[in-house]
Amino acid sequence: MAEYPPRNILLTIAYQGTRYSGWQIQPNVPTVQGALERRLEEIAGHACRVRAAGRTDAGVHALGQLANFVTTSRVPMRGFLRGLNTLLPDDIGVVAVDEVPMEFDSRRDNHGKSYRYSLWNQRPPSPRDAPYYLHIHKPLDLLAMSRAGRLLVGTHDFAAFRAANCERETTVRTIFRCTIDHQQPWVHIDVVGSAFLKNMVRIITGTLLQVGQRKRPPEDILQLLERGDRREAGITVPPQGLCMVRVFL
Amino acid sequence: MAEYPPRNILLTIAYQGTRYSGWQIQPNVPTVQGALERRLEEIAGHACRVRAAGRTDAGVHALGQLANFVTTSRVPMRGFLRGLNTLLPDDIGVVAVDEVPMEFDSRRDNHGKSYRYSLWNQRPPSPRDAPYYLHIHKPLDLLAMSRAGRLLVGTHDFAAFRAANCERETTVRTIFRCTIDHQQPWVHIDVVGSAFLKNMVRIITGTLLQVGQRKRPPEDILQLLERGDRREAGITVPPQGLCMVRVFL
Repeated sequence: MAEYPPRNILLTIAYQGTRYSGWQIQPNVPTVQGALERRLEEIAGHACRVRAAGRTDAGVHALGQLANFVTTSRVPMRGFLRGLNTLLPDDIGVVAVDEVPMEFDSRRDNHGKSYRYSLWNQRPPSPRDAPYYLHIHKPLDLLAMSRAGRLLVGTHDFAAFRAANCERETTVRTIFRCTIDHQQPWVHIDVVGSAFLKNMVRIITGTLLQVGQRKRPPEDILQLLERGDRREAGITVPPQGLCMVRVFL
Repeated sequence: MAEYPPRNILLTIAYQGTRYSGWQIQPNVPTVQGALERRLEEIAGHACRVRAAGRTDAGVHALGQLANFVTTSRVPMRGFLRGLNTLLPDDIGVVAVDEVPMEFDSRRDNHGKSYRYSLWNQRPPSPRDAPYYLHIHKPLDLLAMSRAGRLLVGTHDFAAFRAANCERETTVRTIFRCTIDHQQPWVHIDVVGSAFLKNMVRIITGTLLQVGQRKRPPEDILQLLERGDRREAGITVPPQGLCMVRVFL
């Protein structure tokens, strides 16, 4: 197949993470990256390597993941949009396709991300929504959770809020916003930040849950940030409540 | 186990039909009725036969299915609600539990049902919602669809709108309402009626789709009702867009 001048193409992708072992391609397990690259190769006629803004974990969803790849094919933008949405399974959708400068890199060039962790806070479940929430039967102290969230805002060492096996050298990150959006029976925890450590939003949520259940006061956040001990923070809540909502360029 | 005076218990049930071969219990395949009866037996300590207001087909969802059963156990109402929601898989939820008179029967004593068929009417898909819609890429003539819907309202012979293998003797039914609810990019077709023939809402939707795609005029509905020929109506659209919304008592 003839080669054409390379183009750098940015995909905006939504997916339901339930069936996938996360974003990052791995042998012998279904991954979002793997599913995408396979279809891109069919459409472009050459192997494509996709770079995402963030590598979501197994079971985590996305509404606005960004990922770019370089193609030397002559397939038009519209061809990628339609082709991918035709070939991909229903639980992955391409929302937009844009051409970006050759030097653009989704991972390096994003200025932050927003995540939402969703709790279903009433006794009867909602089967329709069950793939997207953590079920919390008893009422939560949302005011205390909001106060705890505010204490996380700013540039801090988030060592207490990262997975034990997180390999990042520096654990200083900036959180722009951490708020509670209450839409009974939903309680959404929205976290916007420059960058995130492994499991950071899920550990923040696990800690805010302890506050909401009055197992610890909001002010504990200050001590957690100061001492940086993962064992003092809350549990890593399960992945299905988490969604990567948006990436800021 | 000691026997107590029998009680007739009415469950309001929501489920995502994706994984199930429909409501009705059958050997060797997962069914909603089967899943419920198995957990009820665990809780009540005796076999329970559940009677539903309507037997949804494979892949069809429900927000407010009603089903009743008789128990001679002493389990309190709350025990059924909590027990079922603990034991059932996430895709089936019990929304309410009520005691009803012994002679009440969900199937016989309901006064109608409302169904909603959901279309996703824009090119980019929504993976989060994909288990709940039929994807229609091109714009629809919603006004024409509304007009066709209005022509279905009333007491008519719906022979043209039932599955070829439907075994009901009489095909006269009453439709109270058939309207289009447009919430871009969603197009919902709401059908409220006294009772329904097999696949009736899905064939109505398939026919309204032809009208929306300008393949036939709304007035064709009159001829379809008059001639009663299944082959002249639209296709049976796939089950995943259909949801039993409510049962009227």
